[in-house]
Amino acid sequence: MLVSEALARRRAIRDYDPAFTIGDEELARLFALVKLAPSAMNLQPWEFIVVREAAAKKRLRACAMDQYQIELAAATVIVLGNTDMLAHFEPVYADLLALGGTTPERVEGSRRYVRRFDGDVRYRELWAARNAALAAMTLMLAAQELGLDSGPMDGFYPDKLMAEFGVPANFLPVMLVTLGRRAQEPPYPRQWRRDFGDMVHLDTFGEKKGRD
Amino acid sequence: MLVSEALARRRAIRDYDPAFTIGDEELARLFALVKLAPSAMNLQPWEFIVVREAAAKKRLRACAMDQYQIELAAATVIVLGNTDMLAHFEPVYADLLALGGTTPERVEGSRRYVRRFDGDVRYRELWAARNAALAAMTLMLAAQELGLDSGPMDGFYPDKLMAEFGVPANFLPVMLVTLGRRAQEPPYPRQWRRDFGDMVHLDTFGEKKGRD
Repeated sequence: MLVSEALARRRAIRDYDPAFTIGDEELARLFALVKLAPSAMNLQPWEFIVVREAAAKKRLRACAMDQYQIELAAATVIVLGNTDMLAHFEPVYADLLALGGTTPERVEGSRRYVRRFDGDVRYRELWAARNAALAAMTLMLAAQELGLDSGPMDGFYPDKLMAEFGVPANFLPVMLVTLGRRAQEPPYPRQWRRDFGDMVHLDTFGEKKGRD
Repeated sequence: MLVSEALARRRAIRDYDPAFTIGDEELARLFALVKLAPSAMNLQPWEFIVVREAAAKKRLRACAMDQYQIELAAATVIVLGNTDMLAHFEPVYADLLALGGTTPERVEGSRRYVRRFDGDVRYRELWAARNAALAAMTLMLAAQELGLDSGPMDGFYPDKLMAEFGVPANFLPVMLVTLGRRAQEPPYPRQWRRDFGDMVHLDTFGEKKGRD
């Protein structure tokens, strides 16, 4: 499916066909696309919990303001961002070195760059959130190409969800994405979107502030 | 271009063809796709500064650790998240009401829900970052379909960038995305990506902690 078609077809679905299921092979196809998402320094600070079993869906629904679509959907993906920026540094940089994309000296420089943020919780959380969101958007468009509808959700209790699903403390639950097949077209047309002139600024937002 | 082709073709480009330019019509086509990105409650908390002029590119490069690709690229998009969650609430909910997607009472409920986060800077920043990142990923895949290469960047000084481009204090610079045409194929193959088994957990991450 064309990118533009996937964007046009994607709606935030709630009324899923409850008889539709997603098997292991389809999940493998989906995440083989998701893993192509970009991330800062290719550090891939994301993790996904695919909630498919009936009991797990009930537990997730209880963490997510009782939103009924979690039980109708074939699966809900809990998208987690990893605030441990170095979690995958070693294999990523060993690979980059082997590909000839860096030098041992520059690997040390990259490690020092990342270590600068060790004590900066705000930076690490924002870093985890934005990288995981790149994967979440990739997930939604890849799903559309595979014939799956989706629905992003951010109404949930992070602490409750983390306890319920045994998520280690270094992860940040970024969003939920339901997956399945729409039972019917959404009950109303696509909502209003802001226009080009409202959201795009050419070359500057406003006047430069202060001095150089 | 298929979503899967766009994902396979997308590489983080640095060596752009400096003679390639992006005109106003192409920008309009691009952002007509970007605006279809989903956002929490459809509140679209994003804004984009498209840096195309030579002088503006130089100023941006100086805010972004002197990364040369900003001057080679046809344009660099500064992707901003808006931490003012209610910035677009009125037109979004007036539209949803007109479409029959809500009721006046539920609009008030939604407004109260958002107002709960008024004093929670951490929540509002994470909310802005993840929603803006959904738009940034949409931008990169839509660009690929339009024949444009891209490169996500997060190495920049946010405070300097905001001062230099007159960005109001309620915005969070989330990332930069260079746009243009690759001058040559990247010098090494696609980097290693984590496998399904490493990043996907079925139904739970670990053991449930504590009591209900």
